[in-house]
Amino acid sequence: MAGSGFGTIFRITTWGETHGRGVGVVVDGCPAGLELCEEDIQCYLNRRKPGQSRFTTKRKEEDAVEILSGVFEGKTTGTPISLVVFNKDQRSKDYSALANVYRPGHADYTFDKKYGFRDYRGGGRSSGRETTARVAAGAIAAKVLRSLGIEVFAYTEAIGPYSIDLSAWTPEVREENPLYMPDAAAAKQAEAYLEEKMKQQDSCGGVVGCRISGMPAGVGEPVFDKLDARLAQAVFSIGAVKGFEIGDGFAAAALTGSVNNDAFCLKDGRVEKRTNHAGGILGGMSDGSVIYFRAAFKPTPSISSPQTTVTRDGKEKEIVIHGRHDPVIVPRAVVVVESMAALTVLDSLLMNMTSRLDGIQRFYC
Amino acid sequence: MAGSGFGTIFRITTWGETHGRGVGVVVDGCPAGLELCEEDIQCYLNRRKPGQSRFTTKRKEEDAVEILSGVFEGKTTGTPISLVVFNKDQRSKDYSALANVYRPGHADYTFDKKYGFRDYRGGGRSSGRETTARVAAGAIAAKVLRSLGIEVFAYTEAIGPYSIDLSAWTPEVREENPLYMPDAAAAKQAEAYLEEKMKQQDSCGGVVGCRISGMPAGVGEPVFDKLDARLAQAVFSIGAVKGFEIGDGFAAAALTGSVNNDAFCLKDGRVEKRTNHAGGILGGMSDGSVIYFRAAFKPTPSISSPQTTVTRDGKEKEIVIHGRHDPVIVPRAVVVVESMAALTVLDSLLMNMTSRLDGIQRFYC
Amino acid sequence: MAGSGFGTIFRITTWGETHGRGVGVVVDGCPAGLELCEEDIQCYLNRRKPGQSRFTTKRKEEDAVEILSGVFEGKTTGTPISLVVFNKDQRSKDYSALANVYRPGHADYTFDKKYGFRDYRGGGRSSGRETTARVAAGAIAAKVLRSLGIEVFAYTEAIGPYSIDLSAWTPEVREENPLYMPDAAAAKQAEAYLEEKMKQQDSCGGVVGCRISGMPAGVGEPVFDKLDARLAQAVFSIGAVKGFEIGDGFAAAALTGSVNNDAFCLKDGRVEKRTNHAGGILGGMSDGSVIYFRAAFKPTPSISSPQTTVTRDGKEKEIVIHGRHDPVIVPRAVVVVESMAALTVLDSLLMNMTSRLDGIQRFYC
Amino acid sequence: MAGSGFGTIFRITTWGETHGRGVGVVVDGCPAGLELCEEDIQCYLNRRKPGQSRFTTKRKEEDAVEILSGVFEGKTTGTPISLVVFNKDQRSKDYSALANVYRPGHADYTFDKKYGFRDYRGGGRSSGRETTARVAAGAIAAKVLRSLGIEVFAYTEAIGPYSIDLSAWTPEVREENPLYMPDAAAAKQAEAYLEEKMKQQDSCGGVVGCRISGMPAGVGEPVFDKLDARLAQAVFSIGAVKGFEIGDGFAAAALTGSVNNDAFCLKDGRVEKRTNHAGGILGGMSDGSVIYFRAAFKPTPSISSPQTTVTRDGKEKEIVIHGRHDPVIVPRAVVVVESMAALTVLDSLLMNMTSRLDGIQRFYC
Repeated sequence: MAGSGFGTIFRITTWGETHGRGVGVVVDGCPAGLELCEEDIQCYLNRRKPGQSRFTTKRKEEDAVEILSGVFEGKTTGTPISLVVFNKDQRSKDYSALANVYRPGHADYTFDKKYGFRDYRGGGRSSGRETTARVAAGAIAAKVLRSLGIEVFAYTEAIGPYSIDLSAWTPEVREENPLYMPDAAAAKQAEAYLEEKMKQQDSCGGVVGCRISGMPAGVGEPVFDKLDARLAQAVFSIGAVKGFEIGDGFAAAALTGSVNNDAFCLKDGRVEKRTNHAGGILGGMSDGSVIYFRAAFKPTPSISSPQTTVTRDGKEKEIVIHGRHDPVIVPRAVVVVESMAALTVLDSLLMNMTSRLDGIQRFYC
Repeated sequence: MAGSGFGTIFRITTWGETHGRGVGVVVDGCPAGLELCEEDIQCYLNRRKPGQSRFTTKRKEEDAVEILSGVFEGKTTGTPISLVVFNKDQRSKDYSALANVYRPGHADYTFDKKYGFRDYRGGGRSSGRETTARVAAGAIAAKVLRSLGIEVFAYTEAIGPYSIDLSAWTPEVREENPLYMPDAAAAKQAEAYLEEKMKQQDSCGGVVGCRISGMPAGVGEPVFDKLDARLAQAVFSIGAVKGFEIGDGFAAAALTGSVNNDAFCLKDGRVEKRTNHAGGILGGMSDGSVIYFRAAFKPTPSISSPQTTVTRDGKEKEIVIHGRHDPVIVPRAVVVVESMAALTVLDSLLMNMTSRLDGIQRFYC
Repeated sequence: MAGSGFGTIFRITTWGETHGRGVGVVVDGCPAGLELCEEDIQCYLNRRKPGQSRFTTKRKEEDAVEILSGVFEGKTTGTPISLVVFNKDQRSKDYSALANVYRPGHADYTFDKKYGFRDYRGGGRSSGRETTARVAAGAIAAKVLRSLGIEVFAYTEAIGPYSIDLSAWTPEVREENPLYMPDAAAAKQAEAYLEEKMKQQDSCGGVVGCRISGMPAGVGEPVFDKLDARLAQAVFSIGAVKGFEIGDGFAAAALTGSVNNDAFCLKDGRVEKRTNHAGGILGGMSDGSVIYFRAAFKPTPSISSPQTTVTRDGKEKEIVIHGRHDPVIVPRAVVVVESMAALTVLDSLLMNMTSRLDGIQRFYC
Repeated sequence: MAGSGFGTIFRITTWGETHGRGVGVVVDGCPAGLELCEEDIQCYLNRRKPGQSRFTTKRKEEDAVEILSGVFEGKTTGTPISLVVFNKDQRSKDYSALANVYRPGHADYTFDKKYGFRDYRGGGRSSGRETTARVAAGAIAAKVLRSLGIEVFAYTEAIGPYSIDLSAWTPEVREENPLYMPDAAAAKQAEAYLEEKMKQQDSCGGVVGCRISGMPAGVGEPVFDKLDARLAQAVFSIGAVKGFEIGDGFAAAALTGSVNNDAFCLKDGRVEKRTNHAGGILGGMSDGSVIYFRAAFKPTPSISSPQTTVTRDGKEKEIVIHGRHDPVIVPRAVVVVESMAALTVLDSLLMNMTSRLDGIQRFYC
């Protein structure tokens, strides 16, 4: 079954394996008239690419994007935009030893059960490299959103046990440390923790947070296509995500209604909320306040310490995974979360344009 | 935009408002040959219906389901199954006072912003009553799954701060207390806590857990339609859900890879995992172990204590919500979570049937 | 697989069998704010209902529609509109004799092959009665279109060998004869022909034409979702349709480019075409001129003269189909074609609203 | 709105413009385990490529396909297959003169109305070159179908007024003349007719026929997703198609039921039909006999004789279209029709696998 597509009106289809010819995406449904060049996309890809710091894999991938269609004289034409990142640094021999073995925490076993066999080179399609295509598409969605005054901003909220102090949150700081944490002190602690894990040939998990500001109220569909439900799917479709919360999330489960309800008030004649426990969404539709959510990432499953597992031909075996792996996925995942959020929010905004007859009449008459 | 449909191959479309003629669902894509009668569906609806205990709204709804199509001589025919629950107990006057006011924590404001006006009687389409239709459809999905050896079992994991002891988990106990908790001791504490909240004219939140057993490995699509991503959307599309976790969820974010990875092993010649931190899904596909997830529900927003808010015509106002409201949503939501999980898992199982050429050849040749 | 839904943004799902409880449709994605009452729908159903003249089946069906949801205080709310027509006149005994036999020209055999068995009463789901639900939904789509200045007008173009004279086409005449032909002279001839076929216990086919006026230019998607391609599917999904043409259709295959090309010209400063061989669509998008198409309907397969066939248990057999059948489907199909065209055009109009960035910016900023 | 995708389970998304970097397609949902190499696809593309004979444009395009993903060790992996044909021979200057003018019979005007501007080089996305991507995907679908014993065979049925003699139909002859007509005598006449049109600087239309053999009965969904309705959309989505018929098509409209009904009979214990007026589909589902349909193509709109039109900035103007154009589209369209039919039939076959509970149980248990 086709499962590599996402979105309804602004729809993307990704393709590619980590050790094949490359990865790519077709963006179908992008409105015409957006100024777009490769640099708009490249700056997003650079935030995801390997080799940025001592905390990311040493693989060198330039991840240079090419636009193959859908842009003419510097503007999108409304037709599909095909983007490709050709692979350069493929050390296939690194992986051949793992062809016959199921790495714990990876999708090797489930791929074999589903399809009968798999491209075993570096995880094939289940590699994190697939998210390159999502980021390339997300960069376009984010540019459309910015032209509407909407900003999506993701960041590292926690690495292992070290969380940022949300009250001291400073967005600018995000770019000043290799972990993309908007809190310099927490970043220091997290860096030390990571160094320790790397020495132990171990890995760790973390949390990505995301804020969406500038949203008009009323966006999202009230039943199955709730904006938060679609964000949940979008973010959960990133490999390694194990939890998703909006607003107070799991903490809200322990609150009472009198505390958790956000009172409405007037500010300069506009309806606002005194608090934002809800995280900017009520009944599946944006309420005009900042949308914020968090996603939990499991530790990188590829670790160098020995693990026990089973081979494809049914024998137990001890394995050691060599190669160049990120000790934590989170810093490079920040821009992936931001991209999936941008794609979701844009698609919901476009869906929302047909919700009222008077809006349609104004458009056509 | 159409947003009241869910699923691709086994697809449901719900309709109806809490104080209209009724609520219903069309189930399109149900395979032919399933024995089905109204009682199969009614027993699921009875678990959701109001008036079951002192902890649920006193509204009396019989919630009697009628099958209008798609069943002939006791079996599904493969054509759409139309189900309806006509409304009986509609006290519309209870709500008229709220026509002009935005209840905190509800979708009144966002509905008005999206559509320009709303059916204000009891929340209209955004009422929890909409989930009746989901449960009616879920009962059918669950029956198909049982015929394949797959069981979906949801339960109350926490009410406010009181959680079940997962090590003392006994499924049979779920039916023995009005809170659907599979732990008698925790249920006692939670009942006392709820009594207190009701006296305080307040409400509380909680957590629903769910386990899916009997799943074959390899079900789910590896990129956007990951089984866990689709479960996340499905469960998040239930009003009041604020968080979703699979396996260790947010706790996994603080673990290391050496702890969190589930080692593969052989048991009676079959591949199994020694632990199940992953919650039964790897790379978006079922791995053959039990799938388990948790969903956080916020406190019921309708409370009788005074709250401040804003009116439709732009004035601040204090309101007190009278009426017959559940002090906690969770017990009645258990079967809703179970239903959404069943719908999702069945749809993914059907999607998976075309993943291999040899499977298709066996089917047709 | 779910196959009873049509449309993407304005999406309908039909259900029901001819001899079950009733037929119905859920309309999901109708914009909020449309004034709608049952009479708006009933007047469309009345054009389709049996017993209108001596040329339609004598079955008496009142076909009274009920709105079960989605309308509040006389206006659509933007939530799903559930419509139902309960069955009244079901003479199931008429059909029991045919339970074991495959009627030529009907879907009995193919239903059995697909689903293993079938609701054999009057054709079950494959009965023309299923189109009641399409017409109910189409009436709503047509009302939305009229509010945008767009009119869909279908009519009988031919009954057997008797065609209308297109140069003498007068829309008003359509309502003045039981065959819905906009040409009084042709209607007379066709009536005489039909009387003859009825005496011979035979049936005949015909052609439905349709014109759509008031369309803005640029509606339709340029590749797979071309407006004409979607109209083709929509109309071909009506049972008994065997051919579909737009503009000059098959005649264009025998023309030369110099004749078939429609020259552009200016009229009062606006771009127009001197001719309309294309039928109002170029490259899959409306060109601002009248859209016109034709659909061929095969003769009613239910005839009273003896036919040879095969039984479900594998024996050859001669059958005579008694009952109350239309000698020609076309007059009652006119409003079905009109409805499917309205549903398609409206959905394409809504899809088109997101094609340009400046349109989106105007909508939101 | 995304409109460049086709299919549900076996889903393709095409991209690219005639004078951009290239054209391509992503095939998502192809089952794993199909042996596939570039030559399997190239042989289909060669049937479509320009420069094959004196009756096709003299443009030289090698149309060499590259597989970028989804194939590993010679077999499809179940993940998306990305195919690309990079452009080589682009003479953009040929077209710059037409940037400001609306060519009659082309989509220039409608593209401008929809998107505000367009890639005017050679028609951009609306060029017939877009069908390269369809053929590449269709080659894969056809290979899957052949492995199931199903053959799709399209051919030229008519060029202008010259039709093949269906009773003398010999498939082998199709490859023996540049027009792909399975009738040598008709091909001769058509060639002479075409020479004449070319001398007159004119073009002509024609008809493509298609036969699908080996289909099991019961494939197709009975309401909106009827197999014939989906074929109609598929074929009508090819630019220049103006009509589509199945079985007797428009001729059936003039027949009587007693003639048009196909009597069922038994042959070697199997149910067959004595005739095949229906064209192999009853009630939207395959009936086990050969499926056959016809599509009408309009004359090539690009002709060298002078035409009157309007410019983008609103002036009337006479134009002469130079360049290298096909005098008739039909011969190169044969493989496009075959491809769209293969894609449609395969998708419907996959959809059909979930229609019965016992089939699902056999698959999983």
